[in-house]
Amino acid sequence: MRDVSIIGAAETNFGILEGKTIRDIMAEAGTKAIEDSGLNSKDIQAFYLGNFAGSNFVGQNHLAPYTASALGLNHIPCTRLEDACASGGVALREGVMAVASGMYDFVLVGGVEKMTSVTTERCTEILSGAADEEFEARVGITFPGLFALMARRHMFEYGTTKKQLSMVAVKNHKNGAKNPYAQMRKEITLEKALNSVVIADPLNLYDCSLVSDGAAAIVLCPADYAHEYSNIPIDVIGFGQSSDVISVSERPSITVLQSTVKASMEAYKMANLKPQDIDVCEVHDCFTISEIIATEDLGFVEKGKGGKAVEEGMTEIDGVIPINPSGGLKAKGHPVGATGASQAVETVFQLRGVAGERQVKNAEIGLMHNLGGSGSTCVVHILKRR
Amino acid sequence: MRDVSIIGAAETNFGILEGKTIRDIMAEAGTKAIEDSGLNSKDIQAFYLGNFAGSNFVGQNHLAPYTASALGLNHIPCTRLEDACASGGVALREGVMAVASGMYDFVLVGGVEKMTSVTTERCTEILSGAADEEFEARVGITFPGLFALMARRHMFEYGTTKKQLSMVAVKNHKNGAKNPYAQMRKEITLEKALNSVVIADPLNLYDCSLVSDGAAAIVLCPADYAHEYSNIPIDVIGFGQSSDVISVSERPSITVLQSTVKASMEAYKMANLKPQDIDVCEVHDCFTISEIIATEDLGFVEKGKGGKAVEEGMTEIDGVIPINPSGGLKAKGHPVGATGASQAVETVFQLRGVAGERQVKNAEIGLMHNLGGSGSTCVVHILKRR
Repeated sequence: MRDVSIIGAAETNFGILEGKTIRDIMAEAGTKAIEDSGLNSKDIQAFYLGNFAGSNFVGQNHLAPYTASALGLNHIPCTRLEDACASGGVALREGVMAVASGMYDFVLVGGVEKMTSVTTERCTEILSGAADEEFEARVGITFPGLFALMARRHMFEYGTTKKQLSMVAVKNHKNGAKNPYAQMRKEITLEKALNSVVIADPLNLYDCSLVSDGAAAIVLCPADYAHEYSNIPIDVIGFGQSSDVISVSERPSITVLQSTVKASMEAYKMANLKPQDIDVCEVHDCFTISEIIATEDLGFVEKGKGGKAVEEGMTEIDGVIPINPSGGLKAKGHPVGATGASQAVETVFQLRGVAGERQVKNAEIGLMHNLGGSGSTCVVHILKRR
Repeated sequence: MRDVSIIGAAETNFGILEGKTIRDIMAEAGTKAIEDSGLNSKDIQAFYLGNFAGSNFVGQNHLAPYTASALGLNHIPCTRLEDACASGGVALREGVMAVASGMYDFVLVGGVEKMTSVTTERCTEILSGAADEEFEARVGITFPGLFALMARRHMFEYGTTKKQLSMVAVKNHKNGAKNPYAQMRKEITLEKALNSVVIADPLNLYDCSLVSDGAAAIVLCPADYAHEYSNIPIDVIGFGQSSDVISVSERPSITVLQSTVKASMEAYKMANLKPQDIDVCEVHDCFTISEIIATEDLGFVEKGKGGKAVEEGMTEIDGVIPINPSGGLKAKGHPVGATGASQAVETVFQLRGVAGERQVKNAEIGLMHNLGGSGSTCVVHILKRR
């Protein structure tokens, strides 16, 4: 397989994008990414699109050719990928493999979701389609409930505190305030996070990620040509994907996500790196507890020490392992199908050194961690500045 | 890229599979395909699943890991692909590329849909998500309406007759009657087809494919090892995929599907074959007119002669170019996400020479043609018996 590089990256603002259709949003991100690569839409040979539930949120399925034509991409393979909240990351992975295989030279990867045109109740119902309909959703458990179970058990096993959960939110809001693309560009106090309304005990409002519209896009090409198109090619040096049973009741432990462990081991092995080599990391903080668990499962700290890591500032922008400088799903926003692609865009910005106020100093190697559902899918990518 | 072979193939019966969940159906086809390959589920390294709208039909999204765990596939990449009615074919293509790239040796490809648990009205609404929500679905046009436009224009341009449309249905019912997996195992008379209730003029009830539950699965491995697992390995010698604008009003012609032309040209080129070399063919006859158009666009007959081809018996099981010996979407059934994978299963059976009463004599090379929507996606595969 050939080595693959990223030569273009862009995203829309995340938030309530009123008056813009799902096609408009994807066209905006895709057009900017193609421009960023210096290519023309006619050069793109295949399009991989991550989307979770356009058919439910906006009544539009078959979204790959639907959005492609607005991007000037005609008569090329256009394929949608779906693995719940990992749809964007999975699309990136298929795009990388398509270039690595030698099948294509120039591939556009996109991720998009438009979630804010339905009611909160309907949104919750649609999102529950990523859980087990038979054994979870039908009996009334929602994602805040599932992650609350994990949080409660993590507290019991490792002494993780509610304050530590809130500190993840405070940090990510602080980072998001510096990100012009973020939906929530305001800092919050620890007190505010701790005292916000309970959603599913022990998770409060500020422990939960946002409901968002948004899109992100990446242009890939073989590493050998990347310098012709980008002054700072970003190489994809490792990737991994794994799965787990959907229903958390069937897993031997709910304080470790085996899919994260396996996907990241595969990615580290391919990149020939250790967790300590990572300079900047975007993790899938759909809830604050999932950032804490990911910090452990990705190998940055020992199992059970994820809460302490945030408390001690290890995961701040200037910490030992900066996590979610973008603001994460918590503050940047979580347009489900776009999230994995957006993590890649942020990591590209960090490695290019153009992340402005939220820039991690001397970031050369970045990792993206994208979960589907309660961890039944995980996809990890490792990027390196040339 | 490495050459790839099919070493396992199986499907469920198609029809109204009451009392079986979408997971049950996929598990049945997948388990049988793995058994057929002589492998164990533990040998499978990645799972690609085609599904159109599980989130709408049965409230279940994230179907790849959801169905994988019932197949004993744990902790491997499980990815769902969606391109409307071409979802199964697109899943096969990604699976083939994953093996071709050298990334994996043993890949399971599945396709599944469970459509019969919703009302006909709701089903029509869900299917319209494969059309353009903004410019087609919202103004009330449905798929029978879109294909009726194509049929009317084809009649105007080429003199295609209503009788020729009905003859496609009669042929496919005759074939389906010989297929133990088919939903409609009964022959119909030309008179019955011609006089059936009008759905969208000139299309009658018997011009339309069925609403079905069903699943199909394929096991892939590198061509170099295929003989260790199968006495008759079936090689994937060509494939192609293309797209077009979704809204038919934006296409220069509606009597030719450019996506079929481009996808098949790519597949023929890769296989170094001409249309005349194909011994057996499964085409996407979502409506009778689409079989006629495909017969032309795939190069079996000149443009405009597709109606004549069926009238002259060219597309019968013992004809010059046997089309849809399985019964096609028309009689075998059309569980949307399963269709592309099922076309592959039928073609494998034909090339192995185990298709029973519907066997095409001495079939060595087969072609599968899978459309998404009104042709905004097309994926074509060419298989050859070793």
